[in-house]
Amino acid sequence: MAATGTTMNYAERIARAQAEMARQGIDWLLIAPSSDLVYLMGYPAHTSERLTALATPQSGNEPFIVVPRLEAPRLTERHDLLEILDLRVWEETENPIALLAQGLGDPQGKTIAVSDQMWSGFLLKLMDATPGARFVNADLVIKELRQIKAEDELACMREAGRLTDECWEEFVATTTLAGKTENEAGQILASLMAGRGLGTPAFMIVASGPGSASPHYMTSDKVIQEGDAVVFDFGGNVEGYKSDITRTVHVGEPNEEFRKVYAIVDEARQRTYEAIRPGLPCEEVDAVARKVITDAGYGEYFIHRVGHGLGLDVHEEPYMVGGNRTPLRAGMVFSDEPGIYIPGKFGVRIEDSVACTETGGELLNNARRDLIVMK
Amino acid sequence: MAATGTTMNYAERIARAQAEMARQGIDWLLIAPSSDLVYLMGYPAHTSERLTALATPQSGNEPFIVVPRLEAPRLTERHDLLEILDLRVWEETENPIALLAQGLGDPQGKTIAVSDQMWSGFLLKLMDATPGARFVNADLVIKELRQIKAEDELACMREAGRLTDECWEEFVATTTLAGKTENEAGQILASLMAGRGLGTPAFMIVASGPGSASPHYMTSDKVIQEGDAVVFDFGGNVEGYKSDITRTVHVGEPNEEFRKVYAIVDEARQRTYEAIRPGLPCEEVDAVARKVITDAGYGEYFIHRVGHGLGLDVHEEPYMVGGNRTPLRAGMVFSDEPGIYIPGKFGVRIEDSVACTETGGELLNNARRDLIVMK
Repeated sequence: MAATGTTMNYAERIARAQAEMARQGIDWLLIAPSSDLVYLMGYPAHTSERLTALATPQSGNEPFIVVPRLEAPRLTERHDLLEILDLRVWEETENPIALLAQGLGDPQGKTIAVSDQMWSGFLLKLMDATPGARFVNADLVIKELRQIKAEDELACMREAGRLTDECWEEFVATTTLAGKTENEAGQILASLMAGRGLGTPAFMIVASGPGSASPHYMTSDKVIQEGDAVVFDFGGNVEGYKSDITRTVHVGEPNEEFRKVYAIVDEARQRTYEAIRPGLPCEEVDAVARKVITDAGYGEYFIHRVGHGLGLDVHEEPYMVGGNRTPLRAGMVFSDEPGIYIPGKFGVRIEDSVACTETGGELLNNARRDLIVMK
Repeated sequence: MAATGTTMNYAERIARAQAEMARQGIDWLLIAPSSDLVYLMGYPAHTSERLTALATPQSGNEPFIVVPRLEAPRLTERHDLLEILDLRVWEETENPIALLAQGLGDPQGKTIAVSDQMWSGFLLKLMDATPGARFVNADLVIKELRQIKAEDELACMREAGRLTDECWEEFVATTTLAGKTENEAGQILASLMAGRGLGTPAFMIVASGPGSASPHYMTSDKVIQEGDAVVFDFGGNVEGYKSDITRTVHVGEPNEEFRKVYAIVDEARQRTYEAIRPGLPCEEVDAVARKVITDAGYGEYFIHRVGHGLGLDVHEEPYMVGGNRTPLRAGMVFSDEPGIYIPGKFGVRIEDSVACTETGGELLNNARRDLIVMK
């Protein structure tokens, strides 16, 4: 991954989590391997059947982390962390849930917040081991922190966006698509990303022909052909912070319908970007794009929300979706990605990642958005 | 992914799950995106904040699956599935937990088994929506089915092992390591795997020098040097079924200590393989390897279980670990991977995937195991 030279201040993040816990009356915060764990301690642990969990009390004792023996070497080198938390290693034949529950002390009447992404199997065992405790979602605490990006985080995301734009521009300038499989095209793009230090792609959708009409298409060995629309939706990492961009190209000259749809989607994207400002409810961000597309007669073909938060996760809070009244705040980063998907024919999606600033939107992607006809 | 031409019989797998549910008094089986979902319906869904869940009753009604609108196109094409289950699509602004809970009917007194890997955030909401229900781990049902591989599954796993062996043999015959980063070496191996139809690697550990002493090392941009031990632990997919192999090489001539450790680890691997037979408890499989390594004076450096089940997941039941009295049965597939890890110096791990048959072990990996000195 590309390095920005930034060092994240984990002690400060944990202290902010504790302040939020106090505000909400939460006694313990249990974080499983996930981006939340990366956020709080910079530890990209494996999610696996071997329990890893960071337990942070509202106050008093030091936080501790329960870690399997064979992963402990990854933490014993992290002197920055060992100063702020206690490492509790469990041996291969030990019961890690018992070790965790013991560290929590008397569970009676306690409120324990667990990671949204902790496996249910662990939660069910922990519930059995902590009678009288009440469990809530750790998002109550963590989401509040993570959805407002600090300057060190924004620096990573700007760099991720810039490098991803460069990859795309090089890709379209140097690649022919007709005759390649979707997987082959994706691998070329992935190589460009690796070469610029963006790591293994966080995700890579290459959806061609009728497949382009499926927003979460699985890239396949389908051969791309003359006449195909091809949607590329991909992103990489800078210090764990993701980029996320979508561009749609056409192989060979497109017909009028495709040109028309492309222009509508791009107009929806641009109007959405221009609407961004602190205070605007998330659902109204979605409504801007939806109005453009509906007014043009394609409302039924815009089958997803216009955007999702972006950061350590590709999808995180806040979501730009009907029903979400959360007002935008400076430091929120999210995607602006309207699309029109005509079943059996083609789909068009154009996406930039955008930060909300005090004065409006800041584009994290600037790769060309004109309709590109490729070979 | 490579295709074997096999078509899995999902209706039969669901029926077997229902029979197991009846035996255990479980009313509903809720399966989240995971290998369990691939097993039951061949659907490799995204794990995301958008709920997807397959709900199977013990008897009576048809199973149903709750799916977000934008992922529905992936299922409407699956005519084999639409014959055996009901598709319930939720719109972007709907509450999928309410849709799921409604499908379950009156929850009072019901026992609901949920995927081990379902996100806790979903489980907590579902618990709120189903007062009076009791929740248990779906592994009670699914683990029993998945840990005994059927012939169609074994065919995929043999093919995955064979192709992975070929990649390794080509890699060592054609690659020099000194001067390359771990990531670069991993990418070469990944390309060979993609070229043989094994898909994107399911995992890829390249751990060199002192890093080789960390069993779950994160492959990095460290440059591999003369004098380094390098552990390669990797696997691919055939129709979702994984291969898993580890080989350790040395860059330049190794010293006597490395040669000695290598021979001990390989002896432990071989003795473990020879011990495999139906009826042997899993923990005794582990004990065989542990005895070889302990007798040679390196017991404290063998810091993990000797193996894990393998199938649609890289790690699944059964685990070859102290305390697991489960007897081996024909059809179980697992890794045989002893290792010795000397902190600050080097690690050696040698791993094959093995199937238990009626008469003993069947090697799924046969790539050369002699000590390879690379440049």
